[in-house]
Amino acid sequence: MSSSNPDSTIREFNVLKQICDPGLPLDSRVIVGPGDDLAVMLAQPPGEHADDGLRLLLGVDQLIDGIHLSLADCGLELAGRKAVARSLSDLAAMAARPLATLVSAAVPVSFTDDQAMILFESMKRTAEEYHAPLVGGDLSVHKNPEAPLCCSVTVAGVAPAGGEVTRFGACEGDGIYVTGCLGGAWKGDHHLNFRPRLAEASMLRAILQDRLHAMIDISDGLGQDAGHLVERSSLQIMLDADRIPLREGANLEQALKDGEDYELLFAASGEVPDGLGNCVVTRIGTVTARLEDDAPGVIIQSADGHRDVATDGWEHSA
Amino acid sequence: MSSSNPDSTIREFNVLKQICDPGLPLDSRVIVGPGDDLAVMLAQPPGEHADDGLRLLLGVDQLIDGIHLSLADCGLELAGRKAVARSLSDLAAMAARPLATLVSAAVPVSFTDDQAMILFESMKRTAEEYHAPLVGGDLSVHKNPEAPLCCSVTVAGVAPAGGEVTRFGACEGDGIYVTGCLGGAWKGDHHLNFRPRLAEASMLRAILQDRLHAMIDISDGLGQDAGHLVERSSLQIMLDADRIPLREGANLEQALKDGEDYELLFAASGEVPDGLGNCVVTRIGTVTARLEDDAPGVIIQSADGHRDVATDGWEHSA
Repeated sequence: MSSSNPDSTIREFNVLKQICDPGLPLDSRVIVGPGDDLAVMLAQPPGEHADDGLRLLLGVDQLIDGIHLSLADCGLELAGRKAVARSLSDLAAMAARPLATLVSAAVPVSFTDDQAMILFESMKRTAEEYHAPLVGGDLSVHKNPEAPLCCSVTVAGVAPAGGEVTRFGACEGDGIYVTGCLGGAWKGDHHLNFRPRLAEASMLRAILQDRLHAMIDISDGLGQDAGHLVERSSLQIMLDADRIPLREGANLEQALKDGEDYELLFAASGEVPDGLGNCVVTRIGTVTARLEDDAPGVIIQSADGHRDVATDGWEHSA
Repeated sequence: MSSSNPDSTIREFNVLKQICDPGLPLDSRVIVGPGDDLAVMLAQPPGEHADDGLRLLLGVDQLIDGIHLSLADCGLELAGRKAVARSLSDLAAMAARPLATLVSAAVPVSFTDDQAMILFESMKRTAEEYHAPLVGGDLSVHKNPEAPLCCSVTVAGVAPAGGEVTRFGACEGDGIYVTGCLGGAWKGDHHLNFRPRLAEASMLRAILQDRLHAMIDISDGLGQDAGHLVERSSLQIMLDADRIPLREGANLEQALKDGEDYELLFAASGEVPDGLGNCVVTRIGTVTARLEDDAPGVIIQSADGHRDVATDGWEHSA
């Protein structure tokens, strides 16, 4: 579950948190409920026993002109691409095998057939490129002349051999790793033309097997997303400021806060390869025990001191 | 795939038809592609053979204030209910077993937390009532003050024993049947508080087994939806005007054209029960061979003559 638009009076996270309270009883088919990148369902063929089911991963994300991108700046093709790619990145975050994509779009009144075609063709091409064929769609035209393009993309995937990787399995002593580089995704075109790390996630799952403990894709920024890896635990992540791989022209602050990198951030034990194909993998930190209940979830250390990435205040070292 | 808003200059059906051309090669996992109520995918656990997969049904539909309902008239609770129920009706149309629901909503700037909660609670309650638990959600707030509530609902289901029922299996000599009654769904509250016919569809699949040849839910009106049952065939449906069960206060024209009945329309051979629990089942016509290629797909007969429901002109009988 996710939400957006900080300008609004709605505290969206609260709404979704209440709706999806993990304390509420769930249907027995729900293996991983709302709160991770995707939900995991046990889907059973008729007449089979509970254990014989297929682990199916499902998630939905919106892309709205003016919030998640500027259609006037990027054009329809990149908008369609991004709408699908960011949902596919959620499949990568759980090391899932892509299965299918469904899209809906409410388009502005001013749209022509050709414009709608460019948008849908781009969504379809992106879905197919990552082996999650577009199998369902719904197209509406807004009546209100001011209403912006609203896309909603659902992805379905299947758990890999050994099962999906959730956000919540990090262990004390694990290394914290990131693929690629971070920061400034919005300044350049990275947020529009990134490649969802589906292949890299599959490789990690196959190479590390059960040593790949927890994973997430970086959409909200390293600071916040690292926090998600320890949020239901008594663990803490210590990041090393000097090791964080920065996108060209980006600084540490941008890497921590910009988001939209769509890189994999994961916790693993033992040896981890420093590359997957063309993709660099960097160790940027370590999982430790949280010494006090109210200690910050993520600390970043540099020569100047250490800082709680969540509350964002530097504490100079003694 | 579906589309809406006849006011627009976009010929939405054309856009989706081109994107989802059934002549295009499909991924081998796609059993039923776009064009039916839902897509059917073969989802395989890792390492298994192609035949061992699970038949997974997936579909998406939007609900937009001002197009699919008037939020000012019906309120948030019924809007949330309808958004989910109409997608569930697509599962019923294929006799699927519900598995999961995912919703996204872009809400007006003016929305409060409480309003968003009412909407999501209603969607969640409706999904759970029909055993398709809400497992994913995305909430955004429009930036544009004029932009209306846009919801998108994806449903997932599993094929029943014997497999799903598509739109396209009708045979010459089949009876044409409908559940419940038709017409005037928009005048009253039926389009808001209908019960998706999931239980009735399951019963039909279990009772009729392979004699249940084709099925659809009536969303666009009996005339148009009956046409879908024969559109990829050389068959014709002859409807009997006197047998069509009308909702109280509705007339035949409304039954043919209003839509939003969300009743099951199906083709079956042999004996068919005249009720399923509290739900009446009525035989309203017969499937025949289409004598000429350009003959209408659906003809309705009454004492006054017969009429092509597609082109909508009465031809008086000789």
